[in-house]
Amino acid sequence: MQAQLIALDWGTTSLRAYRLAADATVLQERTLHAGIMQLPKAARVLAGALCSDGFELAFDEACGDWLDAEPHLPVIACGMVGSAQGWREATYCDTPANVTRLGHSLVTVHSVRGVDIHIVPGVIQRSRLPNVMRGEETQVLGALAHLPEQMDGSLLIGLPGSHSKWVEVADRCIVHFDTFMTGELFAVLCEHSILGRTQQRSAHFDTEAFDRGVQVALSREGQIGPLSTLFSARTLGLTGMLTATAQPDYLSGLLIGHELQALAATLRQRHGEQPLPAVLLIGNYPLCQRYSRALAACGFAVVSVAEQATERGLWYLAEAAGLLAAPSSFSV
Amino acid sequence: MQAQLIALDWGTTSLRAYRLAADATVLQERTLHAGIMQLPKAARVLAGALCSDGFELAFDEACGDWLDAEPHLPVIACGMVGSAQGWREATYCDTPANVTRLGHSLVTVHSVRGVDIHIVPGVIQRSRLPNVMRGEETQVLGALAHLPEQMDGSLLIGLPGSHSKWVEVADRCIVHFDTFMTGELFAVLCEHSILGRTQQRSAHFDTEAFDRGVQVALSREGQIGPLSTLFSARTLGLTGMLTATAQPDYLSGLLIGHELQALAATLRQRHGEQPLPAVLLIGNYPLCQRYSRALAACGFAVVSVAEQATERGLWYLAEAAGLLAAPSSFSV
Repeated sequence: MQAQLIALDWGTTSLRAYRLAADATVLQERTLHAGIMQLPKAARVLAGALCSDGFELAFDEACGDWLDAEPHLPVIACGMVGSAQGWREATYCDTPANVTRLGHSLVTVHSVRGVDIHIVPGVIQRSRLPNVMRGEETQVLGALAHLPEQMDGSLLIGLPGSHSKWVEVADRCIVHFDTFMTGELFAVLCEHSILGRTQQRSAHFDTEAFDRGVQVALSREGQIGPLSTLFSARTLGLTGMLTATAQPDYLSGLLIGHELQALAATLRQRHGEQPLPAVLLIGNYPLCQRYSRALAACGFAVVSVAEQATERGLWYLAEAAGLLAAPSSFSV
Repeated sequence: MQAQLIALDWGTTSLRAYRLAADATVLQERTLHAGIMQLPKAARVLAGALCSDGFELAFDEACGDWLDAEPHLPVIACGMVGSAQGWREATYCDTPANVTRLGHSLVTVHSVRGVDIHIVPGVIQRSRLPNVMRGEETQVLGALAHLPEQMDGSLLIGLPGSHSKWVEVADRCIVHFDTFMTGELFAVLCEHSILGRTQQRSAHFDTEAFDRGVQVALSREGQIGPLSTLFSARTLGLTGMLTATAQPDYLSGLLIGHELQALAATLRQRHGEQPLPAVLLIGNYPLCQRYSRALAACGFAVVSVAEQATERGLWYLAEAAGLLAAPSSFSV
């Protein structure tokens, strides 16, 4: 198959590059540790001149050989590369946002090799407490392009991670979203708080400890909220009721349980007594597994985990932006 | 005045020593950076023999000269010195706990200089999510011994700190308490999370930013809970609605607001529609100032900030334990 697009998922810590053919079919894929916070530093000759710009260097490492072979491939990128600390700032688009609106808002940076990189803007929800996403909007649009059949009607897309996003979608449009700092909070508590001192890490997912944490968050005792229940990860250990190896997954379940309990309450407040919406998760398998368990405990109907959301999102945004050769050109 | 007691407040990071006369009058006071996690390490000769025990060394530094001058003074200590990582473990007493019960539960360690140190046990509340305190029970009992007149009836004692304690008291007895990890959470978020990256610290207390954080926690938007509202400390900055210098106090207000909102809701659930109880705060002035502001915003009647709670608590516990010379001995 003929390549039609180079698509870059360029975040804070990593840069993933895809060489895509029609319908976002992945021909080649590579991952570099060249996120915007760890760009290459060693100057090299690019396009005949010494270059020390980290973005240029990373871009060349990611797909310079692909462009050498096919110089006219269009290039699209999403993620923190478009932030104020990125290569070129792509100002947030307001909600509601769909693939057409975002596709028409790409920002271009011209590389030293003469190729334009088209950067996808993030999305902002303006309110008393504003909310922002950058990168997730592309994943959401990619997932929406390949929805499971049973997911008509209102849909909730969950993107668990350091900063979990919960995106309400209607008519293939991002209409509202909430952020929870659950993943980052879990990490800093394990690494830097008193809770980490008694924990013993394990590669094994202790589902029993995780489910117990979820149940505590959903229980009557859990109503006091995470600032208080957190301490139980310590006191249950002190009293011999929670082993050191069970403590990390207990804490994970506790935090995710509080997140989903708050999310469900917010949705009910926002939409009245409608049933909770169907959920589509986007993320790595182990994390989606945790969230699936906890969603079920909270009464959500988890229907599916989306796949290839990022590359599909980049593909359809490139299509909406008119970057792809018209299909007819291939039938000649 | 004649000294009657040496009282030690021996925590994780510091050791405070008091030389006390009748009614907990402080004759001398000193603070050492010799908490149980940073004990002295250099061996010295104590009581004629080389000693490398950190507890012995710290004890000697804290009050060896006082005991040289008055070898028969009794010694009492509270705090983490009685924990499993302390000098001698003083097993937790169950709630309800009062000065008599705790005074009769002191645990003794015999020092190399021949003096007994009487260690106050902590308090445990056994329930599905157990709660523990160690050191705070002594402060509560000290505050109860000198209650402001208007504080009859049910009383809530607040001990803000890394792990805030909220202690429900009836008949001068600790009947129930809750813990919130607010202080430690604030510290780890500022030092190790993305929220700290855009903060600019200032010695000045930005009351406006603090109050704004409290109001967000109490608002309709705040009902989604701290795991989500935390992110506003970032997004308000990103959108130019919160300066870098205002961010730490905004976050402080946000977390304390969530703590107190959850506390008020829990008290209402536990006690029905009774008015919120009078509050007595124990702690350092800047922190009590923050909590006083936030308590007022949450509808609590803050009546007072207790003083000298620790030394008074140690005094009355020593009295209850029979460690003090009978008052009559001084009238001879």
